[in-house]
Amino acid sequence: MERVSPVVHCITNYVTVNDCANIILAGGGRPVMAHHPGEAAQITAGSRALVLNMGTLHDTDSMLLAGKKSNELGHPVVLDPVGVGGSDLRQQTFRSLAQAVRFTVIRGNVSEIKYLATGAGGISGVDAADADRITGENVSSAAELACSLAERLGCVAVISGSIDIVADARRVCFVQNGHPIMAKITGSGCMSTALIGAFLGACPEEPFEAALAAVAVMGVCGELAFAKTEAQQGGTMTFRTHLIDQVSLLTADKLTRLARITRRKRNE
Amino acid sequence: MERVSPVVHCITNYVTVNDCANIILAGGGRPVMAHHPGEAAQITAGSRALVLNMGTLHDTDSMLLAGKKSNELGHPVVLDPVGVGGSDLRQQTFRSLAQAVRFTVIRGNVSEIKYLATGAGGISGVDAADADRITGENVSSAAELACSLAERLGCVAVISGSIDIVADARRVCFVQNGHPIMAKITGSGCMSTALIGAFLGACPEEPFEAALAAVAVMGVCGELAFAKTEAQQGGTMTFRTHLIDQVSLLTADKLTRLARITRRKRNE
Amino acid sequence: MERVSPVVHCITNYVTVNDCANIILAGGGRPVMAHHPGEAAQITAGSRALVLNMGTLHDTDSMLLAGKKSNELGHPVVLDPVGVGGSDLRQQTFRSLAQAVRFTVIRGNVSEIKYLATGAGGISGVDAADADRITGENVSSAAELACSLAERLGCVAVISGSIDIVADARRVCFVQNGHPIMAKITGSGCMSTALIGAFLGACPEEPFEAALAAVAVMGVCGELAFAKTEAQQGGTMTFRTHLIDQVSLLTADKLTRLARITRRKRNE
Repeated sequence: MERVSPVVHCITNYVTVNDCANIILAGGGRPVMAHHPGEAAQITAGSRALVLNMGTLHDTDSMLLAGKKSNELGHPVVLDPVGVGGSDLRQQTFRSLAQAVRFTVIRGNVSEIKYLATGAGGISGVDAADADRITGENVSSAAELACSLAERLGCVAVISGSIDIVADARRVCFVQNGHPIMAKITGSGCMSTALIGAFLGACPEEPFEAALAAVAVMGVCGELAFAKTEAQQGGTMTFRTHLIDQVSLLTADKLTRLARITRRKRNE
Repeated sequence: MERVSPVVHCITNYVTVNDCANIILAGGGRPVMAHHPGEAAQITAGSRALVLNMGTLHDTDSMLLAGKKSNELGHPVVLDPVGVGGSDLRQQTFRSLAQAVRFTVIRGNVSEIKYLATGAGGISGVDAADADRITGENVSSAAELACSLAERLGCVAVISGSIDIVADARRVCFVQNGHPIMAKITGSGCMSTALIGAFLGACPEEPFEAALAAVAVMGVCGELAFAKTEAQQGGTMTFRTHLIDQVSLLTADKLTRLARITRRKRNE
Repeated sequence: MERVSPVVHCITNYVTVNDCANIILAGGGRPVMAHHPGEAAQITAGSRALVLNMGTLHDTDSMLLAGKKSNELGHPVVLDPVGVGGSDLRQQTFRSLAQAVRFTVIRGNVSEIKYLATGAGGISGVDAADADRITGENVSSAAELACSLAERLGCVAVISGSIDIVADARRVCFVQNGHPIMAKITGSGCMSTALIGAFLGACPEEPFEAALAAVAVMGVCGELAFAKTEAQQGGTMTFRTHLIDQVSLLTADKLTRLARITRRKRNE
């Protein structure tokens, strides 16, 4: 993944923008954050992948301009529909984006993906609703949600949760890595999206595998980071430091050894 | 405090927004940062508390919309009047907010609270003026400032400093915790305000006690974090990491044992 | 440098704004970030130095208002022309700023300074182009670029790279400190610019020496931080923590002992 160093253009929220830039660098990419409508398309044209994050919704025009340009040039586009069911504005913004831009990957929590797949389910805040948490029991129905969204929009759909799901219209992968402490820092989801962008920039021809690799990296590094945090009796910020650290230190060998990925056909 | 996990809507500055989100999570809340006027009121309606921070002043319309909605729904509203005496715009903004929104808690440094209480005192930058620093000698007059502001606006007023003051129209508490290194990182004040928001969201009926608890948590965790930083020969960023860590690791037992709170009636 | 504590007004990008505020504090200054055109000039008037950073270009009007006011009051102004060759908007913005504002110091990577000095060279992303990397072989031509830009604009020009260059129309200094890991975190450049602002605020009469000192501090602290990071088997975020830590812990003695500065006349 790190042999090329793709420039990744992010139009993203200001809460986690620093973490996103740092995890792209840790993963071997080169982040450029630029949200002015007067340059969004041009910056995208000089990049290898585009990340659109709806976290602190503000720059919809720039997202549209950059997204269209990215499609035109055949660059991958990742969408993080943060809190999409939580306000009318977010719902409208998603519809505007989806009408004008073809996404390569959409990554969200289960409440967000459920909203996009079915139009149902309110969201309070930016976390998955408790009722939506993925467990062993509902993982198959969550996977089907992801597959149906992927089919409808012609993209890869990723659901982050205690079990992560990577799906397209025909197949699904489950990634059983990560740690619950990831939900106790802001930005775990945004960083996952940003890393997907970096990996897509490096491997634009294999979006499913690129997204899967990024999800596995986040999960594996979450585990490694938690082990280091616990050994130091650290809290959530020590964990955040270790999480990005571990991405910057990860080797292919460690990833292969620790990733727990299950591959299935849809509805299998 | 951590049994419920209130959604806390923050319209806050982009300098310390990540720290604010992380300390809300560390304190048991769920942050949502959303500043677009097209969704501010709706996001507030889905939340349990509202934090308005004037640090990088920009979104006054959103603050007004969210503040009014919050009042309408009976949700608590915390204001951090960052640098309020430092520009005409900030003074006007405060007046606009104060005319339209009833605050539950206002937290600032002594220069900010002095300006709000008396209309006097210029501010250079966002720190308390040297002449205003709270010492054993002027702590009573600072407390009276806080009480008079609290009385006039019908809120709880908090002054952060070497001795923290939590006051309403009838009573005042002094919190003698914390460490001077807290002034050497950006965001100590903003994080304190954000944590007040989280505690208010959990205990909306007891705003004085919620604000006092948040102030004590910040002070106690500041001391614990400094001890860890010193043991590692760390600097200001190590301290910042430990500060949020300690909030995430704090137990009721540690807080009770370490908090140094003095309770008085006003003018006692 | 730390005997006075100058207020430093920054109009800067939201990616690294927190790091910039924290490194200004670590270096003995007091940061105030304010970008609203309604207060930019007034905030500058209450400050001792102004930092303009084009990273996430948005607030050109505020930059113009603050820059003019700063010139009027004789305060130093530092410009960080992030990614200036990367979009038409950035090029136009630089021209607007340069027509209206006299800069005291301009700091960029070699691609950015090359663009400003010659008008040539596209930039992809916000990093120096590979073809532009400073090595022992091209360091003299890079120095001449810096001197010619400094002469044309009547300022000090700083190029950050594996060898840092500080130049004015008559002389040049090379700083051989730092570590390649500084390019693996976001914000090394922005923090360097912010620290120059703090040092200029403390020593406005000696802009060359102030910029040189800030560049040397960043380089020396980069080395010290890398040594600590390596000892802990840390990654890029541990390095970022140590970098700001070391600035907060630096003594004049350590700086003098570790800084590797070569002074020359132009074209020598």
